[in-house]
Amino acid sequence: MLKVPDHQVAGHKGAHGQPGPLIDDSGRFYKPLQGDDRGAIEAAFYTSFSSNTRVPDHIRRFFPVFHGTQLLEASDGSGQRPHLVLEDVVSGRSHPSVMDVKIGSRTWYPEASEDYIQRCFEKDRKSSSLCLGFRISGLQLYGSEESGLWKPERKLVQNLSADEVRVVLKKFVSSNSPIDPNLNPDCSFASSVYGGSSGILAQLLELKSWFEDQTIYHLNSCSVLMVYEKKKVLKGGSSDAEVKLIDFAHVTEGNGIIDHNFVGGLCSLIKFISEILTSPDECTTKVCLQNSDNNNEEILTSSNDCTTKVCL
Amino acid sequence: MLKVPDHQVAGHKGAHGQPGPLIDDSGRFYKPLQGDDRGAIEAAFYTSFSSNTRVPDHIRRFFPVFHGTQLLEASDGSGQRPHLVLEDVVSGRSHPSVMDVKIGSRTWYPEASEDYIQRCFEKDRKSSSLCLGFRISGLQLYGSEESGLWKPERKLVQNLSADEVRVVLKKFVSSNSPIDPNLNPDCSFASSVYGGSSGILAQLLELKSWFEDQTIYHLNSCSVLMVYEKKKVLKGGSSDAEVKLIDFAHVTEGNGIIDHNFVGGLCSLIKFISEILTSPDECTTKVCLQNSDNNNEEILTSSNDCTTKVCL
Repeated sequence: MLKVPDHQVAGHKGAHGQPGPLIDDSGRFYKPLQGDDRGAIEAAFYTSFSSNTRVPDHIRRFFPVFHGTQLLEASDGSGQRPHLVLEDVVSGRSHPSVMDVKIGSRTWYPEASEDYIQRCFEKDRKSSSLCLGFRISGLQLYGSEESGLWKPERKLVQNLSADEVRVVLKKFVSSNSPIDPNLNPDCSFASSVYGGSSGILAQLLELKSWFEDQTIYHLNSCSVLMVYEKKKVLKGGSSDAEVKLIDFAHVTEGNGIIDHNFVGGLCSLIKFISEILTSPDECTTKVCLQNSDNNNEEILTSSNDCTTKVCL
Repeated sequence: MLKVPDHQVAGHKGAHGQPGPLIDDSGRFYKPLQGDDRGAIEAAFYTSFSSNTRVPDHIRRFFPVFHGTQLLEASDGSGQRPHLVLEDVVSGRSHPSVMDVKIGSRTWYPEASEDYIQRCFEKDRKSSSLCLGFRISGLQLYGSEESGLWKPERKLVQNLSADEVRVVLKKFVSSNSPIDPNLNPDCSFASSVYGGSSGILAQLLELKSWFEDQTIYHLNSCSVLMVYEKKKVLKGGSSDAEVKLIDFAHVTEGNGIIDHNFVGGLCSLIKFISEILTSPDECTTKVCLQNSDNNNEEILTSSNDCTTKVCL
């Protein structure tokens, strides 16, 4: 039985006459091939990647498993359409906290059309991509049994400043409510989610090491997805923290050159996460997470007391 | 006694009514402050850097020592002008082989004027910067006692392809003449110049490790200068290989974010140099280094026999 995924935080959704992804109960994710080059590029990437013996096994686990393509009734009822059949990376998780981080200060690739390059160039400059080397593309945080999952508007998430990104990365691993503006993120779960030998930082460092060497692919506009089970951690269990790479609609060949744009952005994300692990309290930051139009005055940075308020 | 430096391979020279740098016999390099923001930015950088206690000593050695500013008669006779007084990084070397590598796929910085950004953006796309994450900005190779120093035209050096850059990085550490098009670079000196515990690769890795952590400066449009003494190596001596960072006219504050643009480019350069050390013969490449208009047919890549001819 196919259904619309609950935990998609970024990427194309089924809307405006465009079909969206579907999932089933067996852990598969069905992504409609986009009609233009992007669908063909992504299918070609998965085909190449899944048979490429130069990709080591410990790296392969960071990519969704590929099960080929399949004709399926599109989610918008527009008829049969080819879909990529992929591993559903949040399958089996009931309340996953999810963050989608688009890596790279540049999201365009040299061979794209001039019009496409200009549009991406402007978006990279307006968002945090240019400044940070990455941008948060989507976010879903589990609060508590009562509050459930909280998913701020995508547009707000994408245009955060460096300080705001730091706050969100802290909120991601905090026990207190992400929504309450008066609660500082306590980073209670930083060590169990970001830290440790199998935590997110260790996984990102493993990826970094491969990207410093691999010259097969340039993953333009690709995302690092970070996922964990806060509900389990709250009960004293493991965080099941996991990093996955997703979105390969703009991959180009590496031609013997490393993906320096990806490496730079990944190093920047790693630095942010390392800092949270080593000095979570260095800068106290208040975050008000209501999406409200009338409290713009809350968006301020007070450098004197090192407190930043962020309103999403 | 001040004089014009012999071994400058990139950067502004004294020409067209612009004063150029000067050196003296005591190992100092006098760089005229550019009249616009660039001079002020570079002076501010050196002042900040030389007193910044957060910069570790093992990193400080990669930067020219700063001796303040001084009013001096400009090299073009245009009168007294303020100069940065710096360490002459090739002082004491008679026949240095020198390569100036401008790091980063992006040479502009966000706060620059729209006009400046557009000009840099176009230059980055046309040169190897966008593709490789760096570009060779200048080059001087020592050939032999007879041929002396060989310095190809700067414009030709800046627009090399990835294959051509690989060839030049091999030429840099080869015993055979850089000028003879029929000689494949033998990479004889790769291990003594690029390799070893004090070679160029080790120095670049030390820098990389710092850049993955430091969030003080963003070194936009800065160069890595690689220098060694081929004449000494030819006589069985040490290569005295040295890495220096130069050109800080576009430095901006890091504001708690790593210089991901620099890190990415540096990782790319490191990968090229590592490959020469681990598999110097993987791709045989012929290079004809005469600057001639009538042998364009020599600029070809024959992927069948993995031989690339490069004409500078």
